[in-house]
Amino acid sequence: MLSKERLIEFSDDARKNYLDHISIDCVVFGFHGGQMKVLLLKTPDEEKWYLPGGFVLKQEPIDDAATRILQERTGLDKIFLQQFRVFGDPDRSKFHNDLYRDMLPAGENWFSGRFLSIGYYALVDFFDVNPQPDQFSELCAWRDLDDMPELQLDHELIFKSALDTLRLQLNYQPIGYNLMPKDFTMPELQKLYETILDKKLDRRNFQRRVLAFGILTRADKPRKGGAHKAPYLYSFDLENYTNALTEGFKGGW
Amino acid sequence: MLSKERLIEFSDDARKNYLDHISIDCVVFGFHGGQMKVLLLKTPDEEKWYLPGGFVLKQEPIDDAATRILQERTGLDKIFLQQFRVFGDPDRSKFHNDLYRDMLPAGENWFSGRFLSIGYYALVDFFDVNPQPDQFSELCAWRDLDDMPELQLDHELIFKSALDTLRLQLNYQPIGYNLMPKDFTMPELQKLYETILDKKLDRRNFQRRVLAFGILTRADKPRKGGAHKAPYLYSFDLENYTNALTEGFKGGW
Repeated sequence: MLSKERLIEFSDDARKNYLDHISIDCVVFGFHGGQMKVLLLKTPDEEKWYLPGGFVLKQEPIDDAATRILQERTGLDKIFLQQFRVFGDPDRSKFHNDLYRDMLPAGENWFSGRFLSIGYYALVDFFDVNPQPDQFSELCAWRDLDDMPELQLDHELIFKSALDTLRLQLNYQPIGYNLMPKDFTMPELQKLYETILDKKLDRRNFQRRVLAFGILTRADKPRKGGAHKAPYLYSFDLENYTNALTEGFKGGW
Repeated sequence: MLSKERLIEFSDDARKNYLDHISIDCVVFGFHGGQMKVLLLKTPDEEKWYLPGGFVLKQEPIDDAATRILQERTGLDKIFLQQFRVFGDPDRSKFHNDLYRDMLPAGENWFSGRFLSIGYYALVDFFDVNPQPDQFSELCAWRDLDDMPELQLDHELIFKSALDTLRLQLNYQPIGYNLMPKDFTMPELQKLYETILDKKLDRRNFQRRVLAFGILTRADKPRKGGAHKAPYLYSFDLENYTNALTEGFKGGW
């Protein structure tokens, strides 16, 4: 909890710099070798954890704001964030409004109002990044999806909604370019999908379907090594991959 | 263009009632028998057309605001609108800001600020609804997708983005419950998809794919009639249809 002096200072700064009533929250999923995590913050004096979030500068495009906020709060740089939904329940900030109500009259307290939050999400390799907590946070950490702490405000809803969006995305957009090595086997790619979906997939169906997307190139020769039956190696066809990001899959309609 | 008196009146009312900096724009697509249209408004003194839009009351949930705005501006009632994206370019309202700048100082003019617009879309049967222009509009009309007028502000971008979303949606969510008769043939359903996508689809692939979604029930007997080979009739399995709306298709991963 902020002291009254810091609250006044932050409130005055915020009123000068940020658009009223708008916040951004970022859900960053991390994948590596069959594990899936999400990036969360914790302040020193509250038990619950937060999604990294912040506000939009008065003349800042919202996508730029999302990137800046994630960088400032977690140290993560150059992350491609996708907008997925606005959270607009009138009482979603009630916990914080109540917390600071007695410290500063509503007219002086910029944070006392209603905030709509624009949700952004990303999927990164958690070995490639080094999260750093900001000045408000004691911890900035990857938490396992099957061992989630309690979340503040409506951040549980925002997190779940991002996960639903990511899982739906597997049906209509390519995924994995920043998560797989340059060359990979079909079982390695299948592991990525299984981890996101949290379920086993049929090997033949997976292969048939993912090949129909038209975003993979198969190497001429199987991977070298001692195995009796060496697996074929695949890589992403970047042109088709990029087209499918904007236009959906060839294997679509 | 508003008179100065009306601008002052609207500006004062708006400041009292609405959240600053937030607007909502609705893209309502209409389908009927192989035709696809979009619902637009036109004011008496501007050449360009608008998407129906408006503002969010200070304590109103945003989905409720979208429904109310659409009703007030077009007369369309009980339409299921889906949020799809926020449009947050800092200069997106520049045309209107400039238009009214000389009439009223920015401090007194609520409309002079930056607005983020939350886009909502819907797909309805255009024979089921009767659009009515509001007090600001001269026309409220269904316009053909292949004969679109010029649109004001960034409404062309919002419209195109809604159309992309609708087309992508065909890959991961069911569509058509409110557009098809209770019983329909496979070619009738295919026509809906072809109209939305604006392209011909292969008959066999369409049938195979749409059946794999698991949302259709086939009637025991073909449709009665004089035809040599009567087509089978299908209807939506509402339970599976509703599940697929939230969880994606069975035929997904």
